[in-house]
Amino acid sequence: MSLSNLEAFVRSVQEDSDLTEIQAPVRSDLDDLQLTMVRFFETSLKLLQGVGGHLLAARGKKFRPTVLLLIAKTGSADRDDAVFAASVVEMIHTATLIHDDTIDSSAIRRGMPTLNEMFNDTVATILGDYIYTKAFCELIDRDLPRLVPVVAKTTHRMTIGEVLGIQQKRDPDLTEEDYFELIDEKTASLMSSAARIGAILGGFSDDEVEEMTVFGEELGRAYQVTDDLFDFVGDESELGKGVGSDLTEGKVTLPVIHAIRATSGESCEFVRSLVDRRELSTEERLRLKEILDESGSLEYCRKTALDLADSALGRLSILPEGLYRTALEKAVAYAVHRIH
Amino acid sequence: MSLSNLEAFVRSVQEDSDLTEIQAPVRSDLDDLQLTMVRFFETSLKLLQGVGGHLLAARGKKFRPTVLLLIAKTGSADRDDAVFAASVVEMIHTATLIHDDTIDSSAIRRGMPTLNEMFNDTVATILGDYIYTKAFCELIDRDLPRLVPVVAKTTHRMTIGEVLGIQQKRDPDLTEEDYFELIDEKTASLMSSAARIGAILGGFSDDEVEEMTVFGEELGRAYQVTDDLFDFVGDESELGKGVGSDLTEGKVTLPVIHAIRATSGESCEFVRSLVDRRELSTEERLRLKEILDESGSLEYCRKTALDLADSALGRLSILPEGLYRTALEKAVAYAVHRIH
Repeated sequence: MSLSNLEAFVRSVQEDSDLTEIQAPVRSDLDDLQLTMVRFFETSLKLLQGVGGHLLAARGKKFRPTVLLLIAKTGSADRDDAVFAASVVEMIHTATLIHDDTIDSSAIRRGMPTLNEMFNDTVATILGDYIYTKAFCELIDRDLPRLVPVVAKTTHRMTIGEVLGIQQKRDPDLTEEDYFELIDEKTASLMSSAARIGAILGGFSDDEVEEMTVFGEELGRAYQVTDDLFDFVGDESELGKGVGSDLTEGKVTLPVIHAIRATSGESCEFVRSLVDRRELSTEERLRLKEILDESGSLEYCRKTALDLADSALGRLSILPEGLYRTALEKAVAYAVHRIH
Repeated sequence: MSLSNLEAFVRSVQEDSDLTEIQAPVRSDLDDLQLTMVRFFETSLKLLQGVGGHLLAARGKKFRPTVLLLIAKTGSADRDDAVFAASVVEMIHTATLIHDDTIDSSAIRRGMPTLNEMFNDTVATILGDYIYTKAFCELIDRDLPRLVPVVAKTTHRMTIGEVLGIQQKRDPDLTEEDYFELIDEKTASLMSSAARIGAILGGFSDDEVEEMTVFGEELGRAYQVTDDLFDFVGDESELGKGVGSDLTEGKVTLPVIHAIRATSGESCEFVRSLVDRRELSTEERLRLKEILDESGSLEYCRKTALDLADSALGRLSILPEGLYRTALEKAVAYAVHRIH
C-alpha cells in the first residue's frame, strides 16, 4: 500500500471504528479471558486479594490478546487453549506494567493509581514477580509445552529491555539503532510472541509461524514508535500525561534522536540539553515542538511507523480473507493512530 | 537417632569437618558450576557486566547445588546435566537473595555490599528478574523438560513466600503454623527442589523422588529454624549482624512466637511490644535473651530443628551407603550447626 493510501486507510479506521469494532470477532473470547484472569488472581494471600481486584478493575485494552486470538481463529486453534494462552500473555503484560511503573515511579496508569503509589515499590515488585511466575505455572499445568519456550524467552527479552531502558536513560548520544534495540526487547517482543502463539495454536506451518512472528514484531514497533511520537504531539487531556513527559522521565525516544541528528548549532544543543532535565517550562516545550517540526522529526517518526505498519499489513496476506483478517488489518491501523 | 545421639553427631561434624569436607565429593562439579554461572552472566549489556562480576565475586556457600549434586551422584545422573541443573538452582537462589535484599534493604550480604546498596532498588529488582528468566531460558534450551515444572513451581512458591513475608511483618499474633507456611515457601521450597532435581536426574523411582523431595523440605526447614535461632544466640562478629536483628527488621520468627505463647503477664507483653520496634537497646536485648531462655523458647527451637534433621537423616536410608550418602548426612548436620 502506498503511504498516502495507508494514511487514508488509517484515517478511515480512526473515523469508522475503534478497538471495540476490532475486538468484535473475539468479544466472547475476551470476556472469557477476563474470567480466566480473575481465576489467576484467586488466592488465599490477603495482600494479593486487594491487589488483584485493583488490577482487574483497571481493565487494559487487551490489544495483545486480541492479536493472538484473531490470528489463532484464522487457523484451527482449540478455542479454550487460545483464550488461555491469551490470558497468559495479558498477565505477563500486566506484570510488566507493574514493574515499569516501579521503575518510572508513575502515579497513574489506565486512569487509576498505580500499585506502587497505592502500596510501595516492594509490593509492586513482588506482585509483578508473582504474576510472571503464576502465568508460567498455569502454562505448564495446562500442558501446552510448545508455548513454554516462547513465553520464557519473551519474559527474558523483556527484562533485557528493562536493563536497556536504564542504560539508555538521559543519553543524548543515543542512536536510532539503540532505540530500536530497546523497543524490540521491551515492547515488540511480547506483541511478536502474541502473534507467534496465535499462529502456533492455529496450526500454521513453520514458515507461516515465522511470518506471523515478524508481523507481530513490526506491529509492536509501529505501536511503540507511534506512542513515542504522541508524547510530543498529543493533547494532555487525551494522553493523560504532559507533552514531552517521556523526555523529562529520561527516555530518549525517536523524535528526539532524529532531531539531535537532523539539527545543528543552537537548536541541536537545546534539544541535547533537555535530555538531562526533570522539568520543562511551557516555553521550552513550545520551542521543542517547533524544532521537532522544523527538523522533520515528527514527520520522520510518522513515516517510520507507517512503513512498519505497511510491512505488517503485507504479511497478513498469507491469512485467508475474512472477518478475522479484516480485524487484524484494522488492528494495524489502530496501532498507528490510536489515542489512549 | 535419639536427640542426644543426634546432638553428638552434629557436634562431631562441627568439630571434624566443615562445608569444604561435605563438598569434597563434588568439588570439581562445583568448580564447573562456577564456570557455568560465569557463562550465564556473559552479556553485551554493560549494566549487567559489572553486576554479574560483583555477584560472582561474592561466591555463596552453594549449599543447595551441593545437595543436588550429591543426590544425583548416588544415582545414574549425566554429570553435565547435573552440574547444569545445579547452576540453575544457584542462579535462582542468587536472584532471590537480590530481591530479598531489596525488600529488607540490607546493606551487606556475604561480606560484600548488596546490589541495592551499590546501585539502587530498581536495578536490583531488574537484575533479579533478569537472572530468574535467564535461568529458565537456559533450562529450556538445555532440553531438560522434566525439570521445567519443578523450577517454575519453585520460583512461584518463592514469590508467595515473599508475599507472606510482607503480610506477616510485625505481627505479634503470628502462629507457629504461619511461620512454617512462610519458611516452607521461602526457603524449604528451593532446597526441596534441589533434592528433587537431584533425584530426577539420578534416575530414581517416583517414590524415591518423592522421598528426596520431603528430605529437601525437612532439610530446608531445619536450616531456616537454625538460622532464625542463631539470630538470638549468635555472636555478632560471627553472624555479621546484631542479635535480634530479624526482630528489628519486623520478622517474627519461631523463638519469638514460642516466647509469646509460653509466657504471660509482663514478660509476654514485653516480647509482644518488641515486634513493632526498629531498634533495641542493649538492655532490651539482654532481657529478651533472658526471657527466651527462661521460657524454653531457644531450647524448643533447637529441638524443632533437630527433630527435622533427624527425620531428614532417616530418609537418606533409601540411598546406597558410601561417599555421597555420608556427605549428605554431614550436610544435614551442617544445616543445624553451621555458623556463617
